[in-house]
Amino acid sequence: MVDYSKFFSEYVRSIKASDIRELLKIVEKGNVISLAGGLPDPRSFPKDEIAKIAREVIERFGEKALQYSPTRGVSYFLEAVKNFSIRHGVAVNEGDGIITTVGSQQALYLLGRAFLDPGDYVVTEEPTYLGALQAFRGIGVRYLTVPIDEDGMRTDKLEEVLKKAKSEGLRLKMIYTVPTCHNPAGTTLPMDRRRHLLELAEEYDLIVVEDDPYSFIAFEERDVKPLKTLDRSGRVIYLSTVSKILAPGLRLGWAIGPDPLISRMELVKQEIDLHTSTLSQYIAAEAMNRGVIDRHIPFIKRLYREKRDAMLAALEEYMPEGIKWTKPIGGLFVWVWLPEGVNSRKLLEKAIEKGVVFVPGDPFYPSGGGENTMRLNFSYPSPEEIREGVRRIAEAIREYQG
Amino acid sequence: MVDYSKFFSEYVRSIKASDIRELLKIVEKGNVISLAGGLPDPRSFPKDEIAKIAREVIERFGEKALQYSPTRGVSYFLEAVKNFSIRHGVAVNEGDGIITTVGSQQALYLLGRAFLDPGDYVVTEEPTYLGALQAFRGIGVRYLTVPIDEDGMRTDKLEEVLKKAKSEGLRLKMIYTVPTCHNPAGTTLPMDRRRHLLELAEEYDLIVVEDDPYSFIAFEERDVKPLKTLDRSGRVIYLSTVSKILAPGLRLGWAIGPDPLISRMELVKQEIDLHTSTLSQYIAAEAMNRGVIDRHIPFIKRLYREKRDAMLAALEEYMPEGIKWTKPIGGLFVWVWLPEGVNSRKLLEKAIEKGVVFVPGDPFYPSGGGENTMRLNFSYPSPEEIREGVRRIAEAIREYQG
Repeated sequence: MVDYSKFFSEYVRSIKASDIRELLKIVEKGNVISLAGGLPDPRSFPKDEIAKIAREVIERFGEKALQYSPTRGVSYFLEAVKNFSIRHGVAVNEGDGIITTVGSQQALYLLGRAFLDPGDYVVTEEPTYLGALQAFRGIGVRYLTVPIDEDGMRTDKLEEVLKKAKSEGLRLKMIYTVPTCHNPAGTTLPMDRRRHLLELAEEYDLIVVEDDPYSFIAFEERDVKPLKTLDRSGRVIYLSTVSKILAPGLRLGWAIGPDPLISRMELVKQEIDLHTSTLSQYIAAEAMNRGVIDRHIPFIKRLYREKRDAMLAALEEYMPEGIKWTKPIGGLFVWVWLPEGVNSRKLLEKAIEKGVVFVPGDPFYPSGGGENTMRLNFSYPSPEEIREGVRRIAEAIREYQG
Repeated sequence: MVDYSKFFSEYVRSIKASDIRELLKIVEKGNVISLAGGLPDPRSFPKDEIAKIAREVIERFGEKALQYSPTRGVSYFLEAVKNFSIRHGVAVNEGDGIITTVGSQQALYLLGRAFLDPGDYVVTEEPTYLGALQAFRGIGVRYLTVPIDEDGMRTDKLEEVLKKAKSEGLRLKMIYTVPTCHNPAGTTLPMDRRRHLLELAEEYDLIVVEDDPYSFIAFEERDVKPLKTLDRSGRVIYLSTVSKILAPGLRLGWAIGPDPLISRMELVKQEIDLHTSTLSQYIAAEAMNRGVIDRHIPFIKRLYREKRDAMLAALEEYMPEGIKWTKPIGGLFVWVWLPEGVNSRKLLEKAIEKGVVFVPGDPFYPSGGGENTMRLNFSYPSPEEIREGVRRIAEAIREYQG
């Protein structure tokens, strides 16, 4: 018998499979209502149009669409992303580059490898996106976290955090933020805070990573512009993806930012996988250029607004006193603050007994805390499941408290 | 102005863009014959059948084929890979796992992160595959290289290398090898050497990475079995891909090996990109299950045999005395040994003047050397281009020598 463990690298030994993820995997196979996932509703995929496009791009451009392609991306797709971005209010400036990635997750991984060293500090919201923490995990970075309120990152607190860090001589490099329809918190940062954040990035000479998978499908109007568009000095790297506007199964994302930064991400990507699926890029480029995505977005917005409404109504109706939650204008999640002292991991055990699951909030807090928070997903379950799921969670809370 | 260089990680600073690659990029845009690339002939893609399958899988399985999917891969695809492998003589044993990767390149990257630590030694042929060197580059591994002859790795030399390394207390972990239709060398390891290699892996307790993109399309029969199939103790990780048998643009590869090893690769992959394109997996699964690939393979073999024949005939006809080359039974490349003292980088300058390019061999030697070698590609150029290209290189050699 071979002792395989002796072959494991130090790095892989340090990766702990998430206990919550493992638990949910098992439980979700049973007959439970899941508000734990993060999947888009499959009805949000314009299936028939994608099928038609797939066939046509292969027939028409097969020699290219099925061939190896450049690490940075197929120029036909990069051009489509540029036009799509500009059409939707995301500035692509002279001197900017674009790189295609295997979903936004890979963009985060590339950012980590290209710009972060062990001991560097990343500044982020608290709670923050778990995928970013995973992407940076192997590097040995540390976090400075900034609390949020119902409007997202408290930039007054950000200022305090940066000031303190500078006085302590910490190696600060990057602010990572999801300013619009935050995952997991569901918040959207107002314009004045966006400007404040950029001023601070300027003052402290930081790069800003704006992770923006959701703004194209925000279902309520807000007068906000992407940080990328507000950026005057070229320090924002903007990430997005077709996962929520076309189909996540294409595994297709992109990063737009100053070319010297994008070209460093390209060097790392070349080592990892040479390039992103050429076929996915051709399909998405056509879907952008033919207006398939633009025409489909209103439907996706209606779909998620209805579900968000169902969740907010159920929270309003069933939740006991002393519980707060965000009112997202888009995205897939509502964030819930339980009363101090309620531990959402323990609550989850009770919830499972009642046939409902959610994600406890503490893994989203890289500096610890968040034990009394949880994330609820409304994009995948039906309005009926949302209503019944929230009812059961409320019941579990009452039992927990009482 | 932002000084972007201050944001670069130590790691990204250490990546040097290949000067040869940059040179070739420029030159290949001009009117030259390129024997430098490594692209499959686009005629090897069963375009119409892929177009049809793409449309059908999206129409039929769109909810799944366009959705997020597991890190390890879609079970429908993993099952198809298993059946395809067994059908083609690659053993998939009880206790083996399979993971889907973004091309074989990503499998190499995952292997590096999962099993190699700074200072570990990897044993490999000299010359070896450049993509593997790139994939492991950021880790700080070192190499022990084993010379080849026209039959591939000299396993007698491998034994010497391992013995010496052990006596010196070096941290050995992995043999990385391309036993069949080697890239870049075009060699195929005979059965007795395969058995010897596995015995040595056993004796020195090493894992063996068998990189096998080409054996399905080897155009001459040889009585060889994959190392994976000969492996009795569960220490071979077998890599392959649809890049040469279906389409590289799908970016789809896989690794088969002992599950405790595959599961560690999965942990790393989750951090990098969550999963491989779901759509690519569905398309490839259907192409395997419907027999599209099996029916298409004879055509690909004929295509490449004809080109290989053209190259060998031209080498025979034009090359001056004192030059040796391999006679590949498959794959995409012929490896050429120039007389000692001929520097292939300098030769390339002359070749460019004559309107032909190739890849100098020294980058394929991780321990240095190989200055008098070069790699010639026959899969992409036409037989006429191959003939004329070789003629011009021979002319350049004569001038260089004279």
